[in-house]
Amino acid sequence: MMIQVTCRGYATAQFMQPEPAKYAHAPNIEAKTFMQPEQAYYAHHPGRFVYIKDEESGEIFSAPYEPCRTPVNRFVFSVGKSDIPWTVEHLGIRVELTLSLPTNDVAELWTVKVTNLSGHSRKISVYPYFPIGNLSWMNQSAEYREDLGGVVASSFTPYQRAQDYFKNKSLKDKTFFLWEGGLHAPSALMEPNLLGGDARYEVPIAAVQYRTSLEANDQRVYRFLFGPAVDDLEIRSMRKKYLSEEAFAKSQRDYAWYIEQGRGCLHIETPDKHLDNFVNNWLPRQVYYHGDVNRLTTDPQTRNYLQDNMGMSFIKPEITRKAFLTALSQQEASGNMPDGILLAEGAELKYINQVPHTDHCVWLPVTLEVYLAETGDYALLHEEVKRADGSTNTVFSGFCQAMDWLISARDERGLSYIKEGDWCDPMNMVGYKGKGVSGWLTVATGFALKLWAKICDQQGETKLAAKYRAGVTAVNEAANTHLWDAEWFARGITDDNVVFGTQQDTEGRIWLNPQVWSILSRAASPEQRAKIIPQIEKQLGTPYGVTMFAPPFQKMREDLPVYIPNYYRGAYHEFPRTAGRSSHLFNTGTMPWVYRCLVEGLCGLRGDEHGLRVDPQLPSAWDSINVTRLFRGARFMLDIRHQDVEEVVVKIGGKVVPGAYIKDFEAGKTYQVLSLSRLNLSMDKSLIDGWWI
Amino acid sequence: MMIQVTCRGYATAQFMQPEPAKYAHAPNIEAKTFMQPEQAYYAHHPGRFVYIKDEESGEIFSAPYEPCRTPVNRFVFSVGKSDIPWTVEHLGIRVELTLSLPTNDVAELWTVKVTNLSGHSRKISVYPYFPIGNLSWMNQSAEYREDLGGVVASSFTPYQRAQDYFKNKSLKDKTFFLWEGGLHAPSALMEPNLLGGDARYEVPIAAVQYRTSLEANDQRVYRFLFGPAVDDLEIRSMRKKYLSEEAFAKSQRDYAWYIEQGRGCLHIETPDKHLDNFVNNWLPRQVYYHGDVNRLTTDPQTRNYLQDNMGMSFIKPEITRKAFLTALSQQEASGNMPDGILLAEGAELKYINQVPHTDHCVWLPVTLEVYLAETGDYALLHEEVKRADGSTNTVFSGFCQAMDWLISARDERGLSYIKEGDWCDPMNMVGYKGKGVSGWLTVATGFALKLWAKICDQQGETKLAAKYRAGVTAVNEAANTHLWDAEWFARGITDDNVVFGTQQDTEGRIWLNPQVWSILSRAASPEQRAKIIPQIEKQLGTPYGVTMFAPPFQKMREDLPVYIPNYYRGAYHEFPRTAGRSSHLFNTGTMPWVYRCLVEGLCGLRGDEHGLRVDPQLPSAWDSINVTRLFRGARFMLDIRHQDVEEVVVKIGGKVVPGAYIKDFEAGKTYQVLSLSRLNLSMDKSLIDGWWI
Repeated sequence: MMIQVTCRGYATAQFMQPEPAKYAHAPNIEAKTFMQPEQAYYAHHPGRFVYIKDEESGEIFSAPYEPCRTPVNRFVFSVGKSDIPWTVEHLGIRVELTLSLPTNDVAELWTVKVTNLSGHSRKISVYPYFPIGNLSWMNQSAEYREDLGGVVASSFTPYQRAQDYFKNKSLKDKTFFLWEGGLHAPSALMEPNLLGGDARYEVPIAAVQYRTSLEANDQRVYRFLFGPAVDDLEIRSMRKKYLSEEAFAKSQRDYAWYIEQGRGCLHIETPDKHLDNFVNNWLPRQVYYHGDVNRLTTDPQTRNYLQDNMGMSFIKPEITRKAFLTALSQQEASGNMPDGILLAEGAELKYINQVPHTDHCVWLPVTLEVYLAETGDYALLHEEVKRADGSTNTVFSGFCQAMDWLISARDERGLSYIKEGDWCDPMNMVGYKGKGVSGWLTVATGFALKLWAKICDQQGETKLAAKYRAGVTAVNEAANTHLWDAEWFARGITDDNVVFGTQQDTEGRIWLNPQVWSILSRAASPEQRAKIIPQIEKQLGTPYGVTMFAPPFQKMREDLPVYIPNYYRGAYHEFPRTAGRSSHLFNTGTMPWVYRCLVEGLCGLRGDEHGLRVDPQLPSAWDSINVTRLFRGARFMLDIRHQDVEEVVVKIGGKVVPGAYIKDFEAGKTYQVLSLSRLNLSMDKSLIDGWWI
Repeated sequence: MMIQVTCRGYATAQFMQPEPAKYAHAPNIEAKTFMQPEQAYYAHHPGRFVYIKDEESGEIFSAPYEPCRTPVNRFVFSVGKSDIPWTVEHLGIRVELTLSLPTNDVAELWTVKVTNLSGHSRKISVYPYFPIGNLSWMNQSAEYREDLGGVVASSFTPYQRAQDYFKNKSLKDKTFFLWEGGLHAPSALMEPNLLGGDARYEVPIAAVQYRTSLEANDQRVYRFLFGPAVDDLEIRSMRKKYLSEEAFAKSQRDYAWYIEQGRGCLHIETPDKHLDNFVNNWLPRQVYYHGDVNRLTTDPQTRNYLQDNMGMSFIKPEITRKAFLTALSQQEASGNMPDGILLAEGAELKYINQVPHTDHCVWLPVTLEVYLAETGDYALLHEEVKRADGSTNTVFSGFCQAMDWLISARDERGLSYIKEGDWCDPMNMVGYKGKGVSGWLTVATGFALKLWAKICDQQGETKLAAKYRAGVTAVNEAANTHLWDAEWFARGITDDNVVFGTQQDTEGRIWLNPQVWSILSRAASPEQRAKIIPQIEKQLGTPYGVTMFAPPFQKMREDLPVYIPNYYRGAYHEFPRTAGRSSHLFNTGTMPWVYRCLVEGLCGLRGDEHGLRVDPQLPSAWDSINVTRLFRGARFMLDIRHQDVEEVVVKIGGKVVPGAYIKDFEAGKTYQVLSLSRLNLSMDKSLIDGWWI
């Protein structure tokens, strides 16, 4: 399950059954759609709140903040690694809320601790208030269930065709909100007007009232369980499993252990403590999340699936290995990869995966490169994969077919067709008539072929390597012939033969991806690179980072088209008020790449077939950093320093490691490493020569 | 367009473009679904509100009531025939709000009048506050447009496939909120923090602030226009067309005239003034609404389309005539009617219309009967209809084919197949395997054939009449053989040969429709009727009316199934708290039938081929009523009285009309009619012999 919680108490939670589902809804009928970048909150929903009422003065506030929005005396919101605690103090009462999750089951574990800080005795009421929302137009209700010890909301997932009923019948259509104290305590404390209340085709909320007297410094702790279930049996078993002090504690330990599994292969100590916290905790966790749950979908887009699993190479490479086998088992007979990879029985390609995109094959070698660098597991290439049609194929041969498909899916000019989209989903009209081509995909094909040719060499398949290198030359030449626009590469050519992303365009004049990937594919010569990079900096640079393209489209251009969701966030010059704002999209696919940059770039600790190459690139303001790098079972503890050396010098136990290339090491052992390198290695060198190839 | 407004200020509005669309949305992404029975309101949305702030004391309230929910000194909410006014008095300020609609364009015309009642001068701010909600995840924004004189929210209807773009591109994706005063007045009065505010991928609201000083008894009037548009041009033209005192007044006159067109064929004066108001104003208006807009859908279910147009026979029969021709032009080659009638180019069968139902043909003669009674337009039967396949057919022959299809669509026992539903949509698993049958449809087929046989006779087609009467006999016998259950008729037999709606059932034991229609078809003998009616009264009667079946299903029964949306409303014995509550569904199809009961039953003024038959049935508590009945262009003003006569006596100008059957009359003339009849005509007689056949 996934829960996105704000400091105000708003919460959006989803789980898979097998498609994404909710157990707390909006009061109206919500659309089923793919995960949207921004969640709308309004008044009291969706959220988890606790009202506190002073029974003597009648004053009320709500913790953590919504829906009362009372300015409180003290407010602390902490994001823990495996829990989320709040501390709110107001009217002489401290309310401590803690949310944690079970590792495997779907439920929220809430602890509410109330402390009397006022120095004298108090009478208060505590009301946890959990809106459940509109469950179903077909049938919904909620009631207090004495036998289960909480509120149970029941519903029936709507359907119209008989066959849909059978799909829905095992869904978790119940939402439960359970509390401790069993059959007697809370219900006996309820006020008459709450007692026995139910919802019959009315939008339910779950609430309970604790009337309590607190002497000075007295404390009460309440625990709640909130989640979905199929039936009473499951609710009863969830109660038994989780609803006690010991079970909460055990669940929290288990969850912390689960999170610990995702800590990744890198630990840094740098002069920037925020960066350390980000890199040592949050970044690998997000990479882990993606590799573990595939963006809460049963049909991840192939490019997302491969890139998310690229990140998993740094965390649990056995998952990445399986992902390659899964993806290739769904490869088409043509060699092309499908638009999405189906992960659950009965899953279907949905939303954007029904729109033909042409770039999925590119990501195979791009992501495999990282897996191999991290694991050296070239044996994967010889694994057999069974396809849906019953045929079997090796991984190596599947990759060759994918590369052959990329070579074939080009027009008479040698440029790659785009159909209804490449990596850029919204650009779905460039080639829907079958003629338009993608500038990015052309050079990305070059880069993919180049990576794959190197692996062919490694496998001793020199003829194949030569063939794919010839492909690189062909696509790079085609890009230069048809897309070079004096200072940068154009983004593509439409069905109607209009080149776009050029100096002639007032909107969408320059696009980042064709530039960067032309450098990777070497379509761009050193002279071209020298022209491109200043243009990127000038036209795409903003204080919030480099934008994907500029200037942003503000009106429809029917041959691209161009309506980028949320484009205001990138429109630094046009809409400065909202530019740079985060969309809070927890499904962004950038983290594996950021993590890769840190592992391979900043720390310069990149594997290859035989070992670990060391080539750090510290910012000039830093003298040194300490890094722990887990690599193929060994632990390298590096002291990385600046020094005026010609080449990188690496020493283990005082002995220089030839070529800064650590080959002889054993899994299970720890190595103390000293790395000395010059400042200011040129980005260009590292990008082209050091890092990539 | 349609707008459903509550006294609190909540409002749900839809218009057709051509599919139903909104211009004010929830803050989250709403599902596109068929019209739901109950709308959820929450906090401030969806609604139209005016905040009033006392600039001296800082006090605030909102009119009409939400979102502040301040208890006010005076509150009046009136439902006008063509407008909706509120009067709210609080803090010495009177706020009068009025909503009216243009007749054809889509926009809301709002007038806000503010009066100082406090007897001394006041400084206040008036803030109309119109939440616009989440327009689109693809693109949305809103800003104050000085050139247009209001707030314009722009969006882009989301799509993913290129072909969907072209469907969407002419949609009204803009929402405008315009005010009078042009370029200078309101913006100059705005506070700095509102001035120039915009929304960039943020959920927009439209608000404007008027700071004003009011001497005692001073008044200010503000006018606003709120609605959807394609582009600025349309907004500008809407502004020009509507946003002035004169234009508002003209629009209100036009709208009143439009409403007047739907006043229907009946005006009554009875001892019950509430009934008079209901029958003379609201009931025909609702019938008119349905006949005019077909439940705001482009693919009304065939049974709904025919029944709604049956009501239109009393109001604008030329619309009903066209509806028969439209429906028959979509008749299938088999003679069966499709599940929905497509009314717009490019419209598709959606939602429940994709689920095969078997009852649509039944409604052809049932609704034609009313049209013919009202108009005598037997010429319709000889109209030619062109079908989609290019073939042509007369109306008469199309009806015969539909009746033949009904006769054929029965199993070896002579019972009518139900497939995935008959009139009762949720019962979609009785016959999805192809074997299950409907008890109701079997006797409804009998009734339909019986009505049609009568028309065949009228047309001189006696052989056909005999054939269809033989059909009546066959289905009635089959019903009696297989479905009579000692005291009532069963509801059907499932695919697996389980008879349901019988004494053995603890839920769904008795269903209303098979009983009523067995009486209409005469499957039920007088002896059976005598058993059935007390069972209906005993098992189905509630203080809120007769339920469709009882007891309600409270758990899934997989061979029916049974989850009736909102069943709590009918569960008088099981859930008395919510039983009888209205769903506020403005799309209910009962009104044509209620209107028919009043015209033909209560007033007993039913047409036939040659004239108007008079046979009133007053309640015993009433001595007399006055009725104006419009009929085929003539106006009959009836004085209907109780008197102890053997048969109904009707006099015009003191002369007895033979057989109480008015044949000689002229369109355009008014007739004063006296009608004398006995009390307590038996329901049974009227239902079986007088009314129906």
